[in-house]
Amino acid sequence: MNYLYVAVIVGIAALLVAFLLRASILKIQVKNKRMNEISGYIEEGAMAFLKTEYKYLAGFIVIVAIVIAIFIHPQTALCFVVGAVFSILAGFFGMTVAVKANVRTTQGAQKDIKEALKVAFSGGSVMGLCVVGLGIAGLAILGLIFDLNIEYITGFGLGASSIALFARVGGGIYTKAADVGADLVGKVEAGIPEDDPRNPAVIADNVGDNVGDVAGMGADLFESFVGAIISAITLGAVVKLGTDKAASIFPMAIASIGIISSILGILVVKVLKTNDPQKSLNTGTYTAGALMIIGAAVLSKVLFDTFAPFGAVVSGVIVGLLIGKITEIYTSANYKFVKEIAKESQTGAGTNIISGLSVGMKSTILPIVLICIGILISYYIVGGEANVTTGLYGIALSAVGMLATTGITVAVDAYGPIADNAGGIAEMSNLPESVRDITDKLDSVGNTTAAIGKGFAIGSAALTALALFASFTEAASLKAIDLMNPLTLVGFLIGAMVPFLYGSLTMKAVGKAATEMVQEVRRQFKERPHIMDGKEKPDYKKCVDISTASAIHYMILPGILAIVIPLVMGMFFGAQALAGVIAGCVGSGVLLAIMMANAGGAWDNAKKYIEEGNYGGKGSETHKAGVVGDTVGDPFKDTSGPSMNILIKLMTIVSLVFAPVIAQYGGIIINIFK
Amino acid sequence: MNYLYVAVIVGIAALLVAFLLRASILKIQVKNKRMNEISGYIEEGAMAFLKTEYKYLAGFIVIVAIVIAIFIHPQTALCFVVGAVFSILAGFFGMTVAVKANVRTTQGAQKDIKEALKVAFSGGSVMGLCVVGLGIAGLAILGLIFDLNIEYITGFGLGASSIALFARVGGGIYTKAADVGADLVGKVEAGIPEDDPRNPAVIADNVGDNVGDVAGMGADLFESFVGAIISAITLGAVVKLGTDKAASIFPMAIASIGIISSILGILVVKVLKTNDPQKSLNTGTYTAGALMIIGAAVLSKVLFDTFAPFGAVVSGVIVGLLIGKITEIYTSANYKFVKEIAKESQTGAGTNIISGLSVGMKSTILPIVLICIGILISYYIVGGEANVTTGLYGIALSAVGMLATTGITVAVDAYGPIADNAGGIAEMSNLPESVRDITDKLDSVGNTTAAIGKGFAIGSAALTALALFASFTEAASLKAIDLMNPLTLVGFLIGAMVPFLYGSLTMKAVGKAATEMVQEVRRQFKERPHIMDGKEKPDYKKCVDISTASAIHYMILPGILAIVIPLVMGMFFGAQALAGVIAGCVGSGVLLAIMMANAGGAWDNAKKYIEEGNYGGKGSETHKAGVVGDTVGDPFKDTSGPSMNILIKLMTIVSLVFAPVIAQYGGIIINIFK
Repeated sequence: MNYLYVAVIVGIAALLVAFLLRASILKIQVKNKRMNEISGYIEEGAMAFLKTEYKYLAGFIVIVAIVIAIFIHPQTALCFVVGAVFSILAGFFGMTVAVKANVRTTQGAQKDIKEALKVAFSGGSVMGLCVVGLGIAGLAILGLIFDLNIEYITGFGLGASSIALFARVGGGIYTKAADVGADLVGKVEAGIPEDDPRNPAVIADNVGDNVGDVAGMGADLFESFVGAIISAITLGAVVKLGTDKAASIFPMAIASIGIISSILGILVVKVLKTNDPQKSLNTGTYTAGALMIIGAAVLSKVLFDTFAPFGAVVSGVIVGLLIGKITEIYTSANYKFVKEIAKESQTGAGTNIISGLSVGMKSTILPIVLICIGILISYYIVGGEANVTTGLYGIALSAVGMLATTGITVAVDAYGPIADNAGGIAEMSNLPESVRDITDKLDSVGNTTAAIGKGFAIGSAALTALALFASFTEAASLKAIDLMNPLTLVGFLIGAMVPFLYGSLTMKAVGKAATEMVQEVRRQFKERPHIMDGKEKPDYKKCVDISTASAIHYMILPGILAIVIPLVMGMFFGAQALAGVIAGCVGSGVLLAIMMANAGGAWDNAKKYIEEGNYGGKGSETHKAGVVGDTVGDPFKDTSGPSMNILIKLMTIVSLVFAPVIAQYGGIIINIFK
Repeated sequence: MNYLYVAVIVGIAALLVAFLLRASILKIQVKNKRMNEISGYIEEGAMAFLKTEYKYLAGFIVIVAIVIAIFIHPQTALCFVVGAVFSILAGFFGMTVAVKANVRTTQGAQKDIKEALKVAFSGGSVMGLCVVGLGIAGLAILGLIFDLNIEYITGFGLGASSIALFARVGGGIYTKAADVGADLVGKVEAGIPEDDPRNPAVIADNVGDNVGDVAGMGADLFESFVGAIISAITLGAVVKLGTDKAASIFPMAIASIGIISSILGILVVKVLKTNDPQKSLNTGTYTAGALMIIGAAVLSKVLFDTFAPFGAVVSGVIVGLLIGKITEIYTSANYKFVKEIAKESQTGAGTNIISGLSVGMKSTILPIVLICIGILISYYIVGGEANVTTGLYGIALSAVGMLATTGITVAVDAYGPIADNAGGIAEMSNLPESVRDITDKLDSVGNTTAAIGKGFAIGSAALTALALFASFTEAASLKAIDLMNPLTLVGFLIGAMVPFLYGSLTMKAVGKAATEMVQEVRRQFKERPHIMDGKEKPDYKKCVDISTASAIHYMILPGILAIVIPLVMGMFFGAQALAGVIAGCVGSGVLLAIMMANAGGAWDNAKKYIEEGNYGGKGSETHKAGVVGDTVGDPFKDTSGPSMNILIKLMTIVSLVFAPVIAQYGGIIINIFK
């Protein structure tokens, strides 16, 4: 039997489990009217955003599909559409469940922490399993239809990537505009607590957690997951290794094993039922990882009669885990860096910012070194000294290894915002302190898992981009990417600049959107003086609309640029220049991504550390300085930083899809001068 | 006659003019006792720093010279020592005159603005002419002794680079620790004005202008100047172009013409005597540029019988000018970006920082595009399609062109801190408001020229580094730098990370040093309560000592790393990996340098724009937010940003000098696994 059928079955199985989990969540009845009302607002806001977003995405998908159909192949265009639609579906399913799970988590927290964890994690698991289920099923079905023709299949990756960029950038802007707006006027100016129902931006803020941290993160890892597999298949097709077709089968098989392991890991978390959510989640994650590794070892021996490919897979897993751990060290208040930022906040916001930026920059060292070690190990263990393509295949395998258990990674990650939402609903429904305590505990674990997830997303994006980059050189028939070639050099500098351009666009977007939100919240407080004493209701919808409009408005330019820049550079200056663009973009993009994510996380936790009573505690001058750092850190860690992950993958996969055209017709400007 | 003799004579002529200018400054007698006292403190502090710095540098020079003598050639070691000593001499001469010119500028300002400008610009010119005079004379003399043997001569560049790094990093930390310390306690906490003699850190602050902005900037451009020439000579030696040896002669000849043009430009400024300092300085700079370009055209035609090399030179000049102009657009309050930051400051320090970072990131686009255009033009105009080395020679020529008029560039640049110091002395000596008005006017012109100079320093550093990079590939006999080679790829990622590491180290150093300074100033105010009513003198020396100690302490690690990282990567992973390191470092280094310099400049001027009465003016909440941006911007623009310039050049020239050893013995770790 064709192994692709197995992959389809595994994908369907994952979706089935997701469906069962969804049913288990939906069957819980929420009786509290206020809770239903609040969660209704959140759901409505989230759906409104998705609806608007999909309208724009539909137009985008149609245009790009036509371009691909004309210039590449209609089949590639079809794959592109499927990839885009599947990414949208994963996000849609995941989010519709997340906005149902949040209020049910609140209700669970009224019983005990086990019940709350169960619901929240089930919600996250739906997202995780939809991502991997739709990812592998889509790839495998298209693989069966097109006999795994890489020129077509890469379209699937491009579709996933495009949607991911819009989802991440749009979601990131949405969530941070709402967050910053709610905080600046509500917490700082009006002095009302977080998640207070009197804050007009509070619903938008909670919607933001869903569209940014659930749907955005899901789309990000959806594309990393399929991107890694595609690059490994691309390289596997030309590599001579093991039995016939073994190199093509292996990546998809590892991914399938990873999905099964993830499902088992998820079951472990659900069965465990400890009072320590961190421990439960860790046990589940480690179980999944261990199972996947065992499976990979067996498979490697069977298919290749050597453990070498297994070694590459394991190196990816280990690098991923270590990057996650390092992220925790730099962003958790349990370690010295966050404490240092808190300490420096005593001399004001200036030194808080300097200190945070310094920590963020420093935090790039170890992840980069680890990625490098991973590259060298996976390259040489699989490829040896002689064969470049085989070595690059090794790098792709390590990306696949890192991402194989994406199912549970996303589950753990998406659980965080659900718990966060649950806390918000508890606050807004005036539930007893004990409920909020439980959701806070879940939320705080969620913050750690989110930070680790971010590190993981960056690490996997880097490896995936490099693997796709290798596939591109193969597809464009480049024998070398020579930095002594002036075109490559120029491309390289332009490419290195692109992430800075992105950082600027996305930071500015958040700044502008937040300013609009601030003005709206101020207006409402002024025009409706009775909001503060609870006699008048704030206009939540207006704030939701502002976030939605800003997110859509500001996601368009970055989205288009990511696709146009590689095409323009390739068509005008040729494949060598384009290769330079990708290399430069990956280089500076990965570094900025790590820097921004970790600086943002560290500022956030430094503020929380001060709020716990250190260096003066809440309300002190030190705390004010901490709030400034957190405000800067918000777009860093949730908008600009994560959008870099997608940027580097999207630019690479655009190049990969259009490689044949660029190889043939690229370099228009250069040819004129010849 | 050997053309090198001409270069020696030109160099000596420049030094002679510098000597005459120095004499003209020194013959001015300062009668005001208080002014002499204050300037005496500044001079003493500056000399104390230099003395301590030189003690450490001496040890460093001896050790590195021994290493070079053993592993490369004793002759290279000799050139290294000469390069280091000449760089030190240029800084020493320039600074000893600057600390005499400041007080005489104050005295000149008691007469009128023309007189003040004359003295301040003469002071700056001494620095500028010492830089180019010692640079070209040193190179030419060693060229005569060693028959222009490149393996030896590169040692001169390494010496210049090493000293430059220590001077920039040390000077940058010194000046910003003092500045931030003086501002935070003096201006913000105690509410006394800038340059108030009651502020214990005020002398350290003024010393900082000299060691950072005069000596540091001078050392930076000294190394760019000689680095560009060295790389052009290196490539010129292997290029077949024009008459015999024409390609070797051309760079040095262009530099000589540039020096003569600079001298004439300086005379123009001195003769013009307008009331508009900006106009005087511009006229001088443009005159020098025009003269150099005419000379280059003639020389190109004579030596090569074509204007192609001239084209490369001109492209460098134009790119340099445009980058300067762009820097001004992003950092001057006359344009929208700075106003935008000021506007966003209304919603607090958080949005001020977000806005500034966004502007800084965006400001990278045009300079990078310009550098790319410069690369393509100079490569193809000289090298055509066929010959790589000849094309790279074209890039080196455009760097030489950009730097040929370094003499007047540094003069214009170094004039700024002298005027700044003059204002400080006026304030501390209680001179009438009218004097301060004149020095303020000079100072404000100086801020613009400083911003332009910074842009220019970055642009020239980028081109010089690329040119040196090309020389390195030649010296290491690399036929290609292939990013598909895993070692190159890994080197590339590590290299891209190094500027982030540098940013972290230098930002942190300023943060720590500033904190120490803040504590000392607070202590003095507390223990000597009569400082505030003027009955007690503050202990200036203590603050000077803190700045000196911090600067020395924190410059060592970055200095050593810049030399050790390329050596370690080269020896462990081989020349291909090292090439990747340099490429990555140049890529992310140039971008961070532009981003940090411009964000810093923009924050600074946004604060000043608010102080002029916009958005609430001085003392408003908006102003407080602006001060936070300025505090972050200080290490950005004066420590971390500029140190990137040197870092990329130093790492490249270390690689160039050690290329033979690395090509032969490099790759130890890789060889073990083979």
